[in-house]
Amino acid sequence: MRSPSPVARIIVALLAFGLTAAPPAGLAAGQPSPAAYGRDALLASGPVRTFEGRSLNEVAFPLGGIGTGTVSLGGRGNLRDWEIFNRPGKGVHMPFTFFSMYVEQSGTKLVRVLEGPIEPPFTTGFGFRRVFVPGLPRMEKARFKGEYPFAEVELSDGQVPLEVILEAFNPLVPLEPDDSGIPAFVLRFRVKNTGAAPAKVTIAGSVLNPVGYDGEGQVDGVGNDKFGQNVNEVKRTATLRGLAMSSRKVKPEAPAFGTMALTTPWPDVTTLTHWVRGDWWDDLQIFWDDFAADGRLQDLDEVSPSPDKRTDVGTLGLMATVAPGQEVVLPFILSWHFPNVLNYFDIVPEQRGRVFKNHYAERYPDAWAAAEYLQANLGRLEAASRAFHAAFFSTTLPPYVLDAVSSQASIIRTTTGLWLEGGKYFGFEGCGDQGGCCPLNCAHVWNYAQSLAFLFPTLERTMRETDFLNNVKPDGAMVFRTSLPIGSGVFWNFKPAADGQMGRVISLYRDWQISGDTAWLQKLWPQAKKALDYAWTSWDADRDGLMEGEQHNTYDIEFYGPNSMMGAFYLGALRAGALMAAALADWPAARTYKALYDKGCQNYDRTLWNGEYYVQKYGQVMEKKYQYGEGCLSDMLLGQWLGMVSGLGRYLPAERVQSSLRSIFKNNFLTDFRNFSNVQRTYALNDEKGLLLCSWPRGGRPPLPFPYSDEVWTGIEYQVASHLIYEGLVEEGLSVVKAVRDRYDGLRRNPWNEVECGHHYARAMSSWGVLTALTGQAYSGPEKRMGFDPKIRPDNFRTVWTAGSGWGTYRQAFEDHDSGYAGGATLEVAAGELALKEFVLVLPPDAHGVKIRRIAAKVGAEATKITYRWEGRTIRVQWPAAVTVKPGQPLAVDLSF
Amino acid sequence: MRSPSPVARIIVALLAFGLTAAPPAGLAAGQPSPAAYGRDALLASGPVRTFEGRSLNEVAFPLGGIGTGTVSLGGRGNLRDWEIFNRPGKGVHMPFTFFSMYVEQSGTKLVRVLEGPIEPPFTTGFGFRRVFVPGLPRMEKARFKGEYPFAEVELSDGQVPLEVILEAFNPLVPLEPDDSGIPAFVLRFRVKNTGAAPAKVTIAGSVLNPVGYDGEGQVDGVGNDKFGQNVNEVKRTATLRGLAMSSRKVKPEAPAFGTMALTTPWPDVTTLTHWVRGDWWDDLQIFWDDFAADGRLQDLDEVSPSPDKRTDVGTLGLMATVAPGQEVVLPFILSWHFPNVLNYFDIVPEQRGRVFKNHYAERYPDAWAAAEYLQANLGRLEAASRAFHAAFFSTTLPPYVLDAVSSQASIIRTTTGLWLEGGKYFGFEGCGDQGGCCPLNCAHVWNYAQSLAFLFPTLERTMRETDFLNNVKPDGAMVFRTSLPIGSGVFWNFKPAADGQMGRVISLYRDWQISGDTAWLQKLWPQAKKALDYAWTSWDADRDGLMEGEQHNTYDIEFYGPNSMMGAFYLGALRAGALMAAALADWPAARTYKALYDKGCQNYDRTLWNGEYYVQKYGQVMEKKYQYGEGCLSDMLLGQWLGMVSGLGRYLPAERVQSSLRSIFKNNFLTDFRNFSNVQRTYALNDEKGLLLCSWPRGGRPPLPFPYSDEVWTGIEYQVASHLIYEGLVEEGLSVVKAVRDRYDGLRRNPWNEVECGHHYARAMSSWGVLTALTGQAYSGPEKRMGFDPKIRPDNFRTVWTAGSGWGTYRQAFEDHDSGYAGGATLEVAAGELALKEFVLVLPPDAHGVKIRRIAAKVGAEATKITYRWEGRTIRVQWPAAVTVKPGQPLAVDLSF
Repeated sequence: MRSPSPVARIIVALLAFGLTAAPPAGLAAGQPSPAAYGRDALLASGPVRTFEGRSLNEVAFPLGGIGTGTVSLGGRGNLRDWEIFNRPGKGVHMPFTFFSMYVEQSGTKLVRVLEGPIEPPFTTGFGFRRVFVPGLPRMEKARFKGEYPFAEVELSDGQVPLEVILEAFNPLVPLEPDDSGIPAFVLRFRVKNTGAAPAKVTIAGSVLNPVGYDGEGQVDGVGNDKFGQNVNEVKRTATLRGLAMSSRKVKPEAPAFGTMALTTPWPDVTTLTHWVRGDWWDDLQIFWDDFAADGRLQDLDEVSPSPDKRTDVGTLGLMATVAPGQEVVLPFILSWHFPNVLNYFDIVPEQRGRVFKNHYAERYPDAWAAAEYLQANLGRLEAASRAFHAAFFSTTLPPYVLDAVSSQASIIRTTTGLWLEGGKYFGFEGCGDQGGCCPLNCAHVWNYAQSLAFLFPTLERTMRETDFLNNVKPDGAMVFRTSLPIGSGVFWNFKPAADGQMGRVISLYRDWQISGDTAWLQKLWPQAKKALDYAWTSWDADRDGLMEGEQHNTYDIEFYGPNSMMGAFYLGALRAGALMAAALADWPAARTYKALYDKGCQNYDRTLWNGEYYVQKYGQVMEKKYQYGEGCLSDMLLGQWLGMVSGLGRYLPAERVQSSLRSIFKNNFLTDFRNFSNVQRTYALNDEKGLLLCSWPRGGRPPLPFPYSDEVWTGIEYQVASHLIYEGLVEEGLSVVKAVRDRYDGLRRNPWNEVECGHHYARAMSSWGVLTALTGQAYSGPEKRMGFDPKIRPDNFRTVWTAGSGWGTYRQAFEDHDSGYAGGATLEVAAGELALKEFVLVLPPDAHGVKIRRIAAKVGAEATKITYRWEGRTIRVQWPAAVTVKPGQPLAVDLSF
Repeated sequence: MRSPSPVARIIVALLAFGLTAAPPAGLAAGQPSPAAYGRDALLASGPVRTFEGRSLNEVAFPLGGIGTGTVSLGGRGNLRDWEIFNRPGKGVHMPFTFFSMYVEQSGTKLVRVLEGPIEPPFTTGFGFRRVFVPGLPRMEKARFKGEYPFAEVELSDGQVPLEVILEAFNPLVPLEPDDSGIPAFVLRFRVKNTGAAPAKVTIAGSVLNPVGYDGEGQVDGVGNDKFGQNVNEVKRTATLRGLAMSSRKVKPEAPAFGTMALTTPWPDVTTLTHWVRGDWWDDLQIFWDDFAADGRLQDLDEVSPSPDKRTDVGTLGLMATVAPGQEVVLPFILSWHFPNVLNYFDIVPEQRGRVFKNHYAERYPDAWAAAEYLQANLGRLEAASRAFHAAFFSTTLPPYVLDAVSSQASIIRTTTGLWLEGGKYFGFEGCGDQGGCCPLNCAHVWNYAQSLAFLFPTLERTMRETDFLNNVKPDGAMVFRTSLPIGSGVFWNFKPAADGQMGRVISLYRDWQISGDTAWLQKLWPQAKKALDYAWTSWDADRDGLMEGEQHNTYDIEFYGPNSMMGAFYLGALRAGALMAAALADWPAARTYKALYDKGCQNYDRTLWNGEYYVQKYGQVMEKKYQYGEGCLSDMLLGQWLGMVSGLGRYLPAERVQSSLRSIFKNNFLTDFRNFSNVQRTYALNDEKGLLLCSWPRGGRPPLPFPYSDEVWTGIEYQVASHLIYEGLVEEGLSVVKAVRDRYDGLRRNPWNEVECGHHYARAMSSWGVLTALTGQAYSGPEKRMGFDPKIRPDNFRTVWTAGSGWGTYRQAFEDHDSGYAGGATLEVAAGELALKEFVLVLPPDAHGVKIRRIAAKVGAEATKITYRWEGRTIRVQWPAAVTVKPGQPLAVDLSF
């Protein structure tokens, strides 16, 4: 018998298993609002928060590209945390690196460092750290707004007759890693003359030549054993002029090798190749006095390598005369090129010491070239970045949700990620202050992360390739930390993680759905099957669809006996396995997985249900350390949530899933920590709100429960929030999201750095799931189906969406006219395209039970021929042959009923 | 001719030079109030400030003794900055070292860490640092009050039916170094039951056994290569029970060797020798759950050395039942004994590596013995400490002055000071985070310091002995940094400091005056003379009384040509030299110094006066780096101020001194730094107020002025403030003092740690001069004369005073009766005694010109026969033979006029 066509197969498979992609809103909708926040605070849309005063202190907004490392923009407009040296660098400051302004108006001269005031404390043993030039006058006030990838700092000062707005960004274009992986960022100063006379303005960027510093330890001044023979050169090329920084001491193969450049397309510049090399503080004194005198720098006009063990600071000034009421925009580009990645981090110690190239080094020969590329392509790159930014931040979702989703998507572009030669993306769990922690592609941590899969799916797929094509050993066990280089045959010698291994099978399903690339799935399938089947060697040796063996997991310990967490992962993997096998016409596998999945669902539900939620059943919970037993585990249905995000739908009875989630919210979400005892690590304290990993509302807490049980992890908070929302417990879910962001308020913690076991912790990228849940976005590439199920304000809703082939916006609006209820939905493609055979639309709740009077669908100006199915509030618009939605030719569905 | 008796000689000398001890209030009294603060804010007396909320963050109140190192009490009631390991240790925290409380009342149980809430930021890569037990519930609110040496933290919590006050101190007894140099402090919890039912209370101190840690790097947990074979032992002796901590791994001669003890005299205790040694966080979990269950600890009852590379935490709990409305006081003593001082710091590198003993190690064999001594003598030691505290804080001086004087006297008892075997006291300039900086007895920095000389004059005198008997080289140059051990004949090979060398001669005069010990002066005199005469080899080669040569100084550079700063030092040294020579009947020297002094005064005044203030006259001010020229130098009259404090009186014309000081205040005191450009180190910024080292109000600022010129040093601020007050510019002086303390507000900086080139910087001990200036205390031991000249509220004034032979209080009060103006003065001795031949009293300004109707003086109940002289407002009461004032027998002078 000839096998059916791929698409036919898929449909057969879906029908065979009776699965639907977008689960309907849960039964629990309409529950009373949870106490933590008022409805208005939870549901209102509006602008994202801004930061001022003390709340600027912890703000550090990353300005790096994918795999380039990053420098962060501090809340005051300062550059901080220099992490471009192929290592994290929390607290690493580049001495004397700052922007300053000279203004002359009606004969009055004034100088300012273009930063807001330094906030207390000022405690150090030797005065406040001089490398920050704390003694130079700053702007009186700063206000920071961050809408990733765009940051803005408004700087004002009663004595300065100018409005100054610093804006900074690094292009971020969804689906386009190369456009989003440039080792350079734009820093612009919009200067508006609010005075009555013309103003002469110079804005000067001073930057230390850092070449030689390898990211270890601090740079405390121009002197350091790592420096010497540093060269600053004034360069002019077609589009740019500025300072090119290099070193004659560091050899090209050395990890510290590289270049940096501070450039501008602005024509009228003044430069200082290097500050005077004097005694004491002559350098800064002479620079500052020179600058303050007339806003012009007296350059030495020489290329003069620095003496040994010293480097230089150079300055590039942009000059302009601004008429009253007029604005000028003075642009800088800071670019870098540190091509060599030292493997200091490998989980297999013998692998350490090798050096790899960054992917970006395959595209640019040096920092100047990266700046040239950015400048030459800036129109296109900025337009695309701004289009995404505008689409994202103009949704009707609450601002703290947009903040949570966008801010944590930045993790992709921090030192948590590596993008190496050959194009594969790797990720640490997160970052210690000066080293990734822990290595690499940790399966059970990255399980939670969704942002990369939805924003840059081609990169996410390289992680799947590493998971399955590299890390599944001959016996089927998946090494859950990757050793580099891949393909070396060297593996970490440790037991596999049950959650990691099963979760990656579900993620494979997700990535196949997003990409629609069945050929790619085919390539990975044999190894994926091997990984799934490995469950039967010990975790589910009795093949009852429920794991019982020693189950190592993301808490760094082992659970024993059947338990909700591993069980749900296993069910999801089996379901995904069945669907993928069917799609690939691997019918024996499909049948086996389907049978085991059915059995597993029954066994799970029967064995683990305690009347309110699912638990662990294990006889020695109190004796054997680190179990949870009757505990209400926030991750109990993590494997189910991953299925929801991936389009697998619900495995378990809706009312039990919802009851479980309600229990998690009720028991684990603390609105105050002042009476809570936690001997573990502390991520929430005092009057903060947060979701515990576990609680024991019915007693039965083991004397030594599993580590982390009393902790609060944002990665878990977001997955629970997303799951609550998927299941209709919208306000509960939103409460959890808001609690997280309230903790990261710029005063307590950095909003762009959620930590767990390290900074920029990958798990926090579960926050993308809050977006998919609130919008109900459900896309299947193989089936050419897109759908939305807005969870708030469905009568006037707007969102952004992404898929493998394109991204765009979606809006739906319905109004109650005299003549009846009418409205429609519009799906626009901003970039790429979207081929559709089915479009799924969910009407507002008050439309339940109405009758459709008219329905029509156009693509661009063209009316299309459709059929539709209708069930409850869900309408499925179908085309006999796929239509393709492209930029400028939106899909518009009109309805009246 | 027979030489006259010593006292006769002194008098002869004084008369010969026409010197008076207490200078009258300056001409400038009655100037308009300076703008920085209102009069009320400046002059009102009242309680010292307390700290709450964010302002607790930087508070660290040192609890060490003289030469013992210190642990600090944090604002929240936490112990921080463990500096008992013969090194500074800023940021060194002892993991899991905290006090906690169990309360049981009417069946309700509750546990709290006895600290206020941890304040933001909480930014770290791995949750807030676990070693602080941040996840355990704390008291809701903390309020800190520090009146050195007593600290108090009020802890309250809405859910806790108790008032808890933590009080902490280390005995401080003026003039008694041994009583003030105990390596132990008292920590008491006053617990009052505010509920209606009896409360069972346990307060438990948990402490990590730190033996093995040598003060370098951090201790991040129980694991550290330096630990192992650590032994915690429950011990009971006559007066104490508790935990004795030692190590079997560290050898007695090793720098890290030592013991620590947490003890109590409280009878009803519960102990845990060491927390369970488990995996993960079992240790704290099991301890906390055990404690929370019933407030009693299940001890393992074993002496079990810790495994290698690990140490243990032990806990001592004090149990009590508190009746409603009743209070119980639960006392702990924490003591330590780390006898070996590694010379890691010597200015002569070859000297490093030697090990000395702490003086305290000569008194106590181990930490337990130190605690025993403290407990056995606590009644006496606490009474004496409290008497001084009460006397000091009940003066009529403004609270911020008391705060400035007392808080900076704590420097004596920080790691800035060393008190070594043999009893000599040494001082760094200040402390880096983990090392003294810079070494040792730096003459020009310690010039400013007065607190030690007035509080512990016998220790100050050991520094003079080191200065003159050890550090004056055969050619007369004084090595201005001491190399250890002294007497080794090894000297630092560097040029002498002109200010340091001359200043130490003035200080010698001061210490002779305070002690009255002319035999001691005699011993040092030949070397002192050599040091003074050294001026003629290059500084004043032409012997015109004005220095002109290369003058190295406290700004770490050299001044050239005649200049106000060195000139004033030199005048003071010559004047002191003349007086000391005369007192020792070294008439040729006396005549030489006197002649040179007279010539110098004239030359100084003529050469350096610019019409407003004294300057530097040097032809190459603009070309030669680091000069000040026409600058208005805050230190221009430092050498004159030192003379005022030392009892030398004024060398220069009153109106010019006052004009100079007024210029310093007008030009150098900034009330806002937002427009000021400073490329040097930054000690004041934003909206803070502070006194610059220099300014150039008439122009002429060199392109590269001397380093530090744009900085703000509290040590200079206090000397200028004190000098302003001495000269009657009282509100100006007070403004400067208040500005300093406003910067050290607990939020910006630690009030008990003024920094300059290091923490606890010795120069800040110039603050004692604010007390001597405000009270006008002037004591001469050789002459047996004491006097006061209150600068504020002289009609109702109270102060504390110290002298070499005793200390006590002084008060004067005058009232305008119908019958005339009447009142009196009472001088009480709290400890020691005071022999008097003359007592000098200054009447309030409105008494100017009145006529004395009656004057009488009693000592105790005894009327004494007096004569008196009267000039302006100053009355000199004289006894034909010395009277002795003793405790309980005050001197009372009654007046009516």
